[in-house]
Amino acid sequence: MTRALTSPDTPPAAPSLDRLVALVATDMAAVNQIIVDRMQSPVALIPQLASHLIAAGGKRLRPLITLAAAQLCGYHGTRHQKLAACVEFIHTATLLHDDVVDDSLLRRGAASANAIFGNKSSVLVGDFLFSRAFQLMVEDGSLRVLAVLSEASAVIAEGEVHQLLTTGDLGTTEAQYLEVISAKTAVLFAAAAEVGAVVADRPEEEIQALRRFGTNLGVAFQLIDDALDYAASEAALGKTVGDDFREGKVTLPVILAYARGTAEERAFWHRTIEELEQTEADLATAQALIEKYGTVRETVARARTVGEAAKAELARFPHLPIRDSLMEAIDFAVARGY
Amino acid sequence: MTRALTSPDTPPAAPSLDRLVALVATDMAAVNQIIVDRMQSPVALIPQLASHLIAAGGKRLRPLITLAAAQLCGYHGTRHQKLAACVEFIHTATLLHDDVVDDSLLRRGAASANAIFGNKSSVLVGDFLFSRAFQLMVEDGSLRVLAVLSEASAVIAEGEVHQLLTTGDLGTTEAQYLEVISAKTAVLFAAAAEVGAVVADRPEEEIQALRRFGTNLGVAFQLIDDALDYAASEAALGKTVGDDFREGKVTLPVILAYARGTAEERAFWHRTIEELEQTEADLATAQALIEKYGTVRETVARARTVGEAAKAELARFPHLPIRDSLMEAIDFAVARGY
Repeated sequence: MTRALTSPDTPPAAPSLDRLVALVATDMAAVNQIIVDRMQSPVALIPQLASHLIAAGGKRLRPLITLAAAQLCGYHGTRHQKLAACVEFIHTATLLHDDVVDDSLLRRGAASANAIFGNKSSVLVGDFLFSRAFQLMVEDGSLRVLAVLSEASAVIAEGEVHQLLTTGDLGTTEAQYLEVISAKTAVLFAAAAEVGAVVADRPEEEIQALRRFGTNLGVAFQLIDDALDYAASEAALGKTVGDDFREGKVTLPVILAYARGTAEERAFWHRTIEELEQTEADLATAQALIEKYGTVRETVARARTVGEAAKAELARFPHLPIRDSLMEAIDFAVARGY
Repeated sequence: MTRALTSPDTPPAAPSLDRLVALVATDMAAVNQIIVDRMQSPVALIPQLASHLIAAGGKRLRPLITLAAAQLCGYHGTRHQKLAACVEFIHTATLLHDDVVDDSLLRRGAASANAIFGNKSSVLVGDFLFSRAFQLMVEDGSLRVLAVLSEASAVIAEGEVHQLLTTGDLGTTEAQYLEVISAKTAVLFAAAAEVGAVVADRPEEEIQALRRFGTNLGVAFQLIDDALDYAASEAALGKTVGDDFREGKVTLPVILAYARGTAEERAFWHRTIEELEQTEADLATAQALIEKYGTVRETVARARTVGEAAKAELARFPHLPIRDSLMEAIDFAVARGY
């Protein structure tokens, strides 16, 4: 279904992260080693649980961004490796807590940590990884980096609470939805990119350009995530399709379909999203209404627009292979999962 | 019951925190203002939930320690106020997560945050307060303080996971139990005291002496907490008595009673603590066994010994009123709740 929706603008070869991954491969190997080394603890359950998630083969998109941003800024040291590991630790901590908050059973196509190890361990190991991230930043010694990532962490938590409050609330506006995804997702992309420019000691305007690049990439990424929850196959998505629907999350495809719906359709959304009274068949009905109003297509189109804004920020940087690969990463974020 | 156990060494007037509180009153008023100001967020649920816990009238023991340690070290600035607020934010974050992990319904004599606002909000607001603490530390600008409190946070999480693993395990040794309480409780007391000496820029040996003072005070505090869970009245304790028993936590009173128990008594502990098969009457039986072997008395005696070690660390500091009040705070920690 959605393949057709995106195909007009899809470049001939499917965009991928391959080039980006190749260009930062040496750094990423170091990051992976730091991650493994620094998630160790005398309490064996901690590395067990953390490695379950970290080894599950996430794309490491956020540390990739830090490494690529540093490379784009001409950085030649190794500080970005440790800081990319910090970014991944913070991301992993938020995933562990998210899965507890959402009662998710699947993560990256495998059983989620909370499903295997229980909610209690997931909360506490999240706390551990979060603390460990700050320890790594202290070792690095940059107060600027500490400021960027502590603020990002606070904003992520605010975004998650805000999302909790909009859950089940069909009165959520598009603006509120954008606030939520900017906070819960885009801020860490922005921080990941900013940190790469900060270690390279670039002028403030370049730092801010990379920050805006990260913000736009993160918003595009989350818009697609929310589109995929109604449109993707589980195999391609690596998580349960329909999760957002079952949890009553009010995402853009729903906001738009609700706004355009008939009285009867609105009653459907009230029952399923606000009252969370759902039957087996309801997800298919929701998908049909979303198809009827083309709101997944529209969500993807917005992601593409925001992705173009991310590309525009990169234009001021030298035309290096790493810049092309970041452009491609944006296309990948917009086209993934179909 | 336990009043009799502690009375021989109890000073004529019941020890209290009153003098300590009075000596740092001006600073604490500033700390409270910082706490209120900095738990604000555009997401209104965050200050609502945080203030529920923070306003519930905790003793603010950890920030008190930071303020008192700084005063003992002759510090005359205001940095310790913000850092004491950090310590309280970290403590509050761990309380919020603990109550989720323990499914606790009471905290400080009132309904716990998770009971009112739900586990999801408690996890996320804990994350927010934790992040905010790091933002405050970054504003302060001391990498040493950041190192102390990020390490403390990691060790607390390790201690909490370790406690999860010893829960229901009657094979837990005294040494393992002491590791757990040192990590989950004493490390933040130690960090709170250390930070006070660090801002005062005292020589390393004084910093370490205050750190050991904090460690010993924290261990004494937790030993008494664990004794009170079997011995106190709910009104005096401000939390549900028997929580540890119902959760299958293996604390010192249980470890000692189990070690000395008959085969029949050990079967009781296996059923109630390991299998968590409990009837209404079991708490009373557990209390009777603990009374039979005097293990609450013994736990309190150990707390007193560790408290004396805390006092010994203070002896090297000038004989100021604040030093006396800290000595009294140790007595209070050991004698509280009876």
